[in-house]
Amino acid sequence: MIQQRPAIGGLFRIRSRQKATRPMIIVLKPSAPRDAADRLLERISAAGLQPLHMPGSERVVLGALGDERVLAELALDSDPAVESVKPILAPYKLVSRELHPHDTIVSIGNVEIGGARVAVIAGPCAVETPDQMHASAAAAKAGGATVLRAGAYKPRTSPYGFSGHGPDGLRILREVGDAHGMPVVTEVMDTADIAVVADHADALQVGARNMQNFALLRAVGKAGRPVVLKRGLSARIEEWLLAAEYLLAAGTDQVILCERGIRTFETATRNTLDLNCVPYVKARSHLPVIVDPSHGTGKRDLVTPMALAATACGADGLMVEVHQDPAAALSDGAQTLYPDQFAALMSALRPVAAAVGRAL
Amino acid sequence: MIQQRPAIGGLFRIRSRQKATRPMIIVLKPSAPRDAADRLLERISAAGLQPLHMPGSERVVLGALGDERVLAELALDSDPAVESVKPILAPYKLVSRELHPHDTIVSIGNVEIGGARVAVIAGPCAVETPDQMHASAAAAKAGGATVLRAGAYKPRTSPYGFSGHGPDGLRILREVGDAHGMPVVTEVMDTADIAVVADHADALQVGARNMQNFALLRAVGKAGRPVVLKRGLSARIEEWLLAAEYLLAAGTDQVILCERGIRTFETATRNTLDLNCVPYVKARSHLPVIVDPSHGTGKRDLVTPMALAATACGADGLMVEVHQDPAAALSDGAQTLYPDQFAALMSALRPVAAAVGRAL
Amino acid sequence: MIQQRPAIGGLFRIRSRQKATRPMIIVLKPSAPRDAADRLLERISAAGLQPLHMPGSERVVLGALGDERVLAELALDSDPAVESVKPILAPYKLVSRELHPHDTIVSIGNVEIGGARVAVIAGPCAVETPDQMHASAAAAKAGGATVLRAGAYKPRTSPYGFSGHGPDGLRILREVGDAHGMPVVTEVMDTADIAVVADHADALQVGARNMQNFALLRAVGKAGRPVVLKRGLSARIEEWLLAAEYLLAAGTDQVILCERGIRTFETATRNTLDLNCVPYVKARSHLPVIVDPSHGTGKRDLVTPMALAATACGADGLMVEVHQDPAAALSDGAQTLYPDQFAALMSALRPVAAAVGRAL
Amino acid sequence: MIQQRPAIGGLFRIRSRQKATRPMIIVLKPSAPRDAADRLLERISAAGLQPLHMPGSERVVLGALGDERVLAELALDSDPAVESVKPILAPYKLVSRELHPHDTIVSIGNVEIGGARVAVIAGPCAVETPDQMHASAAAAKAGGATVLRAGAYKPRTSPYGFSGHGPDGLRILREVGDAHGMPVVTEVMDTADIAVVADHADALQVGARNMQNFALLRAVGKAGRPVVLKRGLSARIEEWLLAAEYLLAAGTDQVILCERGIRTFETATRNTLDLNCVPYVKARSHLPVIVDPSHGTGKRDLVTPMALAATACGADGLMVEVHQDPAAALSDGAQTLYPDQFAALMSALRPVAAAVGRAL
Repeated sequence: MIQQRPAIGGLFRIRSRQKATRPMIIVLKPSAPRDAADRLLERISAAGLQPLHMPGSERVVLGALGDERVLAELALDSDPAVESVKPILAPYKLVSRELHPHDTIVSIGNVEIGGARVAVIAGPCAVETPDQMHASAAAAKAGGATVLRAGAYKPRTSPYGFSGHGPDGLRILREVGDAHGMPVVTEVMDTADIAVVADHADALQVGARNMQNFALLRAVGKAGRPVVLKRGLSARIEEWLLAAEYLLAAGTDQVILCERGIRTFETATRNTLDLNCVPYVKARSHLPVIVDPSHGTGKRDLVTPMALAATACGADGLMVEVHQDPAAALSDGAQTLYPDQFAALMSALRPVAAAVGRAL
Repeated sequence: MIQQRPAIGGLFRIRSRQKATRPMIIVLKPSAPRDAADRLLERISAAGLQPLHMPGSERVVLGALGDERVLAELALDSDPAVESVKPILAPYKLVSRELHPHDTIVSIGNVEIGGARVAVIAGPCAVETPDQMHASAAAAKAGGATVLRAGAYKPRTSPYGFSGHGPDGLRILREVGDAHGMPVVTEVMDTADIAVVADHADALQVGARNMQNFALLRAVGKAGRPVVLKRGLSARIEEWLLAAEYLLAAGTDQVILCERGIRTFETATRNTLDLNCVPYVKARSHLPVIVDPSHGTGKRDLVTPMALAATACGADGLMVEVHQDPAAALSDGAQTLYPDQFAALMSALRPVAAAVGRAL
Repeated sequence: MIQQRPAIGGLFRIRSRQKATRPMIIVLKPSAPRDAADRLLERISAAGLQPLHMPGSERVVLGALGDERVLAELALDSDPAVESVKPILAPYKLVSRELHPHDTIVSIGNVEIGGARVAVIAGPCAVETPDQMHASAAAAKAGGATVLRAGAYKPRTSPYGFSGHGPDGLRILREVGDAHGMPVVTEVMDTADIAVVADHADALQVGARNMQNFALLRAVGKAGRPVVLKRGLSARIEEWLLAAEYLLAAGTDQVILCERGIRTFETATRNTLDLNCVPYVKARSHLPVIVDPSHGTGKRDLVTPMALAATACGADGLMVEVHQDPAAALSDGAQTLYPDQFAALMSALRPVAAAVGRAL
Repeated sequence: MIQQRPAIGGLFRIRSRQKATRPMIIVLKPSAPRDAADRLLERISAAGLQPLHMPGSERVVLGALGDERVLAELALDSDPAVESVKPILAPYKLVSRELHPHDTIVSIGNVEIGGARVAVIAGPCAVETPDQMHASAAAAKAGGATVLRAGAYKPRTSPYGFSGHGPDGLRILREVGDAHGMPVVTEVMDTADIAVVADHADALQVGARNMQNFALLRAVGKAGRPVVLKRGLSARIEEWLLAAEYLLAAGTDQVILCERGIRTFETATRNTLDLNCVPYVKARSHLPVIVDPSHGTGKRDLVTPMALAATACGADGLMVEVHQDPAAALSDGAQTLYPDQFAALMSALRPVAAAVGRAL
């Protein structure tokens, strides 16, 4: 079900094996002894790197140029004479557009994400019952969604919340997706569950709270399924791209980045949707970027305007919570759309997508 | 030059003199002595408020219902038996849509903000020279901006930065605005400068760093000019609306709210543009909301996509930095558009505005 | 090696099976239809809860009182007439001091944490080599540390960083701990590794990035070892306590909370050490709280002053990175103390601990 | 009443007139045209700076070395070929310990701040009545406070809160301070009020919300009184030091920095007290640093432990809210100590101060 794109994948993997040279700036403390600069420059030279001396009247600043892994192993920031070390280039590589200039298109089942169409992934927060899933999938499909989402394993802040039906939920999700002709994406939270989730789902989702669960990333990257990687609540963009780098380093290039709001001081909304990241990441990475305005706002009334905004600034798709009866949903009801609200969202979305040269 | 709108202003000022009743919830500490609840309920009654008792098996919870100023004066959160006091309703009133359901339209010169058109305010960060201002205003006007912006008093993080030409800058701004037929808006930073700024500008801007400079807010609210109130870097939406409440309480209802990015942990962009706030505030306040994607991103390449996103989610206008030669600008150059980039932004904006039922 | 404390554990587990009644406040939207209040009050009654009506002139506010799980299942915040739902009490229970007033003392090997002594856990960031571990353990022991720490599984932001020696590292750690008579604590990152880590370590650490890895929490809570639960980078205190609630709900009451700095806008330090949380949590939970000034600052020069501060405000222990040669450390070198710096920290700590009635 | 320290002040002012050379790193975009590096190096040379070329295989990185004002005027970050510009050294100077290695001691009346003693400034949030002030000052004095604080001009989030008695409040404060033999410090919020506040107070406070009110900073720096500069809610340490730089550049060297908590995602406490900043700033600036645990926590029960923590990590003093009857206070009651709590704080503080080599 996964579209193979060996040519591009092969290309950038070969290129990434090239040694990358990279400059690094080392600022010494005002109290550094006179011979510290010489000692550090010697260490830099001895490691086969090119040393640079930038004397100032106030502080001594050094530079080192060479293979970035050698630079990292030197760990110059541990030296007591060093105040700070500033790497100049971002440390991600496989996800970078510099080495892979063309957009990657990821296929979930027969749906392409990252191409000319804005893909809409929709469905309820959780798989509750077959009836609820059928009705919610029908609503998603009727509105125009092309991929179905729902959770069988639910991360919950409290141990007393509904945490999903597990394998039973996966079976329901698969049946409902097939019945409605929609590929399905669902979250996996534990390395022990990857096989069963990959058996039932067309794409695996790594949730915000697991964005730096590195054991999970390494294993999911080898599971043979496309991955939706949500941004962590307090993840800087660079850390998000490095989490994606884990996935690509594990062997897949079928990764979709999903912005879903970050945690800030603002409490009026559940999260602060950081749409700046959409054009920022699109310029720096070849991976598709989608936006989840449901978690990004936490409020049903804000989902549609923020879906339009996400599309206007270049998102490749949306992930939206829709439920046949949100007032009865077991989780996330306050941010979940009613079927008619989702239909209205899709109607409003079409002209905005067209205005930026995309279709639904 | 200020459009008078007495009917609406009069209406909501009269209504705001009505007493507002409001419920408040008081949670006692687990360690509160047995008689604390009775004592507090007596204080609530004695103040003429309606007391409510909500006994739980774990904690005692009390309620109080009545005039909100009386509630505030009771200062129940200072009582040693009280763990927390939760006011239920937002404490702003004059800015609230509950008391003033219709949109307020603010006029800067002959330009309406808050109506059917998306207003674009553009210009350089600072007034540098007459030539720079003429060329930049021509670029703004040619692109389709209707209001001219530029600073004569510049807040600068360092005392050694260029801090503006003051009254000389105001004169240049006025002349250039008149020459190009554009009303002008400019920042005022000190109560001592309000008179001279109001003499030269069609609208006064209160900057992000002064959003809670309450002395300035009170004085600007009496200056007889419309006000652009930028959101503070760490201001919650409620605090921003309360800052606007200062302006309205001082006598003006010609206030435009401007989102310009908040400070978060993300360092890839200068600020995190919080577009969630646009539909959130529009639902709760009758005041127009505009967005500044220049400060909101700090990066030239992100200005256009975020201008489109702001418009898509309902912003009433934009404030954009444009300079005839950003590479030579004395401040904010990295986020300032070249004339041709601004023209391209405006071209891209038209279909997006149309897609959400607005015009430029 | 784990001290059994069945009496206390049994007591609070029995008490937690009691039904907890809890009040909840429901605020309706201004636009809510007139019959919405009646409808909601009926739902509250039908669920066996006590309904409360608090009419105000501006908004309708309702209350519900009763079993908290029934309240949660009602999911009233999903109702389209509801603006917000405010639970009044914190949703954690087993970790709460309300139901378990006495301090829990956790034993790692023969070292008690949470009692009269301030426990100091020290060691290098990672197990590198047997020699490095022996020398670093000797430095920790000589300074006065009583528990040894070092990582065999290292979470690294980049997939290209040193990620630990795994089982080989665990064997070295165990041997070095035994040789120096120090119990050992080390991080576990994957449910698949819990058995092997529990075989080699006296206590398991759940790292900041996994604080909401709920699958890991559930499994670690059943592993039969005390747990050090680090606070997540963006975890509110309540979420941290709920993560601990997962561990207690899984069957252990041997949990130590570790503050290690939160992520804020401040970039001068690696994290912002939130010492407010120490007295705040100690007042609300019976679990011991320790502080990691190494990660909490990211700078070697700040470790000692913040260790003193943590002890002064009531921390039950410290976790400090010490390495025989930080300049050669494979990770975290910039925040790691030299042996003589650690000895100086311990000398400075003794009088501060004494000043607040504790010993080392 | 202001202790003159001309020798030191004179010294560092002379040194600050020296030209400071400073390195700067310029990273080009991957898309930068081939001749961009040459063009930029020429601009750097033409400005009299020393250009540096650091070619890498992935990106072009340039350096520039020379007078920092010339570097700032070049505004290289505005160039379209430039991705980012990284200044290497902090841009503050007069406040820096590099140019002024010895501690500055600031005198408020006859009380020295920054020397061997930990100075305690205490008093109510606001001047309410003569009786309230006398009783509160007596409580502060009895506990051991040496400076009296209280506000006559109060910044309030809502325009409907109590905003202070203004000049009447200043008169009461002066009389009460004289009656109890305590110098007084009080906040000034408007340049128009500086003269009257300076007439009545021994020191002027600039509040957190005005930390970047640059007009106020410039004027307060010329008022001839020592200044307590509170850190802004979202101010990075470098910005706080630059705000202090405004004061020193205006002519005073009698500046006390006051940490009072920053705004983060944590809502359990009013603010997050950032004690990391105490040793960080003390290492980099010669100015005294004090801590306000009342605003820094917002909770009465946390004030004492955080006062101890602040002292343990090197604070030169404390600012604490004490009121004769906090339950009746017009503002900030929840974080204000009762007289006996303040006495207990001071008793607990003495041994902690002694443990770090200080006295009260």
